Amino acid sequence: MESRIMSFREGATFLGSASVVGKREYEGALGELFDLHDSTDKFGMNTWEKAESEMQRLALNTALAKVSATERDVGALFAGDLLNQCVGSSYGLLGFDIPYFGLYGACSTAAESIILAAAMVDSGYFSSAAAVTSSHNCTAERQFRTPIEYGGQRSPTSQWTVTGAGAFIIGKGGSVRIKEALCGIVVEKGIKDLSNMGAAMAPAAADTIMRYFKSSTLSPDDFDAIVTGDLGIEGGKILCELLLAEGLDIRRVFLDCGIMIYGGGDPEIYPESAVFSAPSKRKKRDFDLNAGGSGCGCSATVLSAYFLPKLKSGELKNILFLGTGAMMSPASVQQGESIPAIAHLLRLTHEE
Amino acid sequence: MESRIMSFREGATFLGSASVVGKREYEGALGELFDLHDSTDKFGMNTWEKAESEMQRLALNTALAKVSATERDVGALFAGDLLNQCVGSSYGLLGFDIPYFGLYGACSTAAESIILAAAMVDSGYFSSAAAVTSSHNCTAERQFRTPIEYGGQRSPTSQWTVTGAGAFIIGKGGSVRIKEALCGIVVEKGIKDLSNMGAAMAPAAADTIMRYFKSSTLSPDDFDAIVTGDLGIEGGKILCELLLAEGLDIRRVFLDCGIMIYGGGDPEIYPESAVFSAPSKRKKRDFDLNAGGSGCGCSATVLSAYFLPKLKSGELKNILFLGTGAMMSPASVQQGESIPAIAHLLRLTHEE
Repeated sequence: MESRIMSFREGATFLGSASVVGKREYEGALGELFDLHDSTDKFGMNTWEKAESEMQRLALNTALAKVSATERDVGALFAGDLLNQCVGSSYGLLGFDIPYFGLYGACSTAAESIILAAAMVDSGYFSSAAAVTSSHNCTAERQFRTPIEYGGQRSPTSQWTVTGAGAFIIGKGGSVRIKEALCGIVVEKGIKDLSNMGAAMAPAAADTIMRYFKSSTLSPDDFDAIVTGDLGIEGGKILCELLLAEGLDIRRVFLDCGIMIYGGGDPEIYPESAVFSAPSKRKKRDFDLNAGGSGCGCSATVLSAYFLPKLKSGELKNILFLGTGAMMSPASVQQGESIPAIAHLLRLTHEE
Repeated sequence: MESRIMSFREGATFLGSASVVGKREYEGALGELFDLHDSTDKFGMNTWEKAESEMQRLALNTALAKVSATERDVGALFAGDLLNQCVGSSYGLLGFDIPYFGLYGACSTAAESIILAAAMVDSGYFSSAAAVTSSHNCTAERQFRTPIEYGGQRSPTSQWTVTGAGAFIIGKGGSVRIKEALCGIVVEKGIKDLSNMGAAMAPAAADTIMRYFKSSTLSPDDFDAIVTGDLGIEGGKILCELLLAEGLDIRRVFLDCGIMIYGGGDPEIYPESAVFSAPSKRKKRDFDLNAGGSGCGCSATVLSAYFLPKLKSGELKNILFLGTGAMMSPASVQQGESIPAIAHLLRLTHEE
């Protein structure tokens, strides 16, 4: 069997990116790094769904502006979100006259979209392509659990869906390269609790990381960071334990966007990791973080705002970035099914 | 601006495919061409959602068996369906140990998945890849409109969601080639009627066909057939009129999988087209067809069962195949939004 690691040539680099977030994300540890925010979470719209679409539009528009590109320069869009029928993307990007590939990878969609955009550009089908993803707390909570107006209690393992959108322009000539990718396999380990996505997704992340290191000549020590999308505190601990049981210790370099976005460099969360420092000490969060952030917008905004600048500057030279997603629907869980999950891996490097 | 037509080399061919359908599809004009059917529509499962997942599993398994391949031979799956969070695919293909790219393109997903699988194989990332899509009448109707048990009246422009799944194995060396592809752009022309998807999708199909012929040296006369996924009678007529207004007459070669699957070679449906003949005169349908079939499974099963064999034998040598999709959600329509639509184009050729 082939290793299935996808190796990209020089074509697959980040030309630019943008992040758009809501109130709580702006107040979190990485707040000042995001490009745009709206403290009402509404983005000038009269429904939460339209607000989510507007975040996608703003993110792509900002990313295009940063690289002085227009919609005519982009060969294809790869986009998705958590909403039923992915309407956050189909409506949000409707105004752009760009061919559109719709994706659904739950919270792994940011990584999935970047893999496909990178492959298309690196193969020469398009000179550039864009990847856009979003989530919105108020659309996701009422669709997957209960409307936020209900004010239901949240369990300690639950995660807070990030209000945010990220857009990435992939093309030739950038200084952050997408060097390799490994697409995830859907795995399911019996978790049925919609308030414990971390536990459902951790085995998928472990599976992809194990497959990567089995096929690669590299070891965790070769990386400055191994970053998961949104396992949160619960899922992050499970991932580290699952990998330790297989003889792989990633704790020194492990980071998770879902922990970072609200929690910052909290030493109780990262007892082992030495690589993460929040840009500033924000005021203590005044809402219940529980296990951390989640949603398509979580890994997308943290990748754009935190990791890509550090890879560009050379502060980070070589990282693994995993998008992690839980692939159930509310109906499938109500019907008694377990939660399948997936994790797509990207190897990102600083190019001199 | 680049033409955005994707040209594939020799790598992108169909190695094999399979189709699985329900009762009404088996009783339709193409019934005897499908590989598998279940006259209960349940496929041995106790929920409609599980039945849809089982169709996907059966379709991929049958396609793999036809080409004597196992899951170890397939580098990646590209899959999607109409269900919220695409659970038809994530659960249906869970048993296959193959990297999984989840897609959402509404009824255009069959074409979208084949484009991406073809690009990945043709670029050499994988030696083969699979595309799998499905829809099920009983899951779709209760999710998008009303449960079938409700027995609601259906308008003349409404389409019947096909119960069916198609799977395609893409790799080198087959005799039906995916020669070119053109990804659709999301367009929206003010249609808000969930019972008139044909009208919502026809402008998207017209947009993609016009863009193709503006960038190509070919004309409609160079094709044996120009096939849309599931515009139905209403949408098919609108498409032909929209293109005529732009000076492009495709009526001689126009076909639509949504019309073909139940309606057969009915002369009132195809007054102009001379190219379609149903394999046999089935007994007259005993249910209300309205404007024809729709759903991800419609174009997937008709492509697999009707067009690919004719392309393989050389009876058809050069066709355009468009997957057409309506990208709304029930929530977006309830909120007063119009229905965005998309159409992805494939050029398929017989190779000597």
